[in-house]
Amino acid sequence: MPTTFDQILDGTVPCHRVYEDEHVLAFLDIFPLAPGHTLVIPKERKAHLHELSGASGAALGSALVKVARAVLAATGAKHYNVLQNNGAPAHQAVLHVHFHVIPRVGDRGLELTWKPGMLTDAEAATLLPRLHASLVGESGR
Amino acid sequence: MPTTFDQILDGTVPCHRVYEDEHVLAFLDIFPLAPGHTLVIPKERKAHLHELSGASGAALGSALVKVARAVLAATGAKHYNVLQNNGAPAHQAVLHVHFHVIPRVGDRGLELTWKPGMLTDAEAATLLPRLHASLVGESGR
Repeated sequence: MPTTFDQILDGTVPCHRVYEDEHVLAFLDIFPLAPGHTLVIPKERKAHLHELSGASGAALGSALVKVARAVLAATGAKHYNVLQNNGAPAHQAVLHVHFHVIPRVGDRGLELTWKPGMLTDAEAATLLPRLHASLVGESGR
Repeated sequence: MPTTFDQILDGTVPCHRVYEDEHVLAFLDIFPLAPGHTLVIPKERKAHLHELSGASGAALGSALVKVARAVLAATGAKHYNVLQNNGAPAHQAVLHVHFHVIPRVGDRGLELTWKPGMLTDAEAATLLPRLHASLVGESGR
């Protein structure tokens, strides 16, 4: 089942293209939280960030730096958020990886509620071996 | 004025290290929104994403894919958000670039309020030339 972003990549649905390279496409969000709100997506067709190849991840990271710079220059905004959601319970609406670059201008932009806990040494001692086990073989773990 | 993350990079403040490579360090957030909440930072000492080199951006993007995979494996979470804030009005607390990888588990995780507008063709026609002007010379604009 192709998503809207697949259709944009195929050229069957139009977009306001901001940036494109071999691995990445960026275009204006048609439902912006603030003027200049831009989406940066991989051409690789995966729903979630953790499913992407390293090449797509690297290209997205590099493109985010460029697109953020352009969004600031184009809008005059000084502050912004970068957000990428995975799964409907985490507010993902389109099941193709996408990073939002969202300028903060006055009362427009991304609104967050932050309810932090406190990490205990016992929790860290439980989590770290599991994290490291998953990262075995990755460079420089 | 060194930030706490500079001190972590210098080794003068400890961290619960999750992942490290030439350009990137990842460690557990000590004030997690949910268990496994991890921060991914560049070793390049910049406050904001748009100030980073392309190499740092690429390394961050690549590391985010690996760290997201590890956080899911370690916590059993199925859903998560990736968030990177730039500037105090956009909720940035430490002035060194950092990506949050935040699992969503039950009612723990990142809470968002989404108040979208609608992009008009006139707005797009104003924004796109400015965005493209900023991206002149970037590959494949």
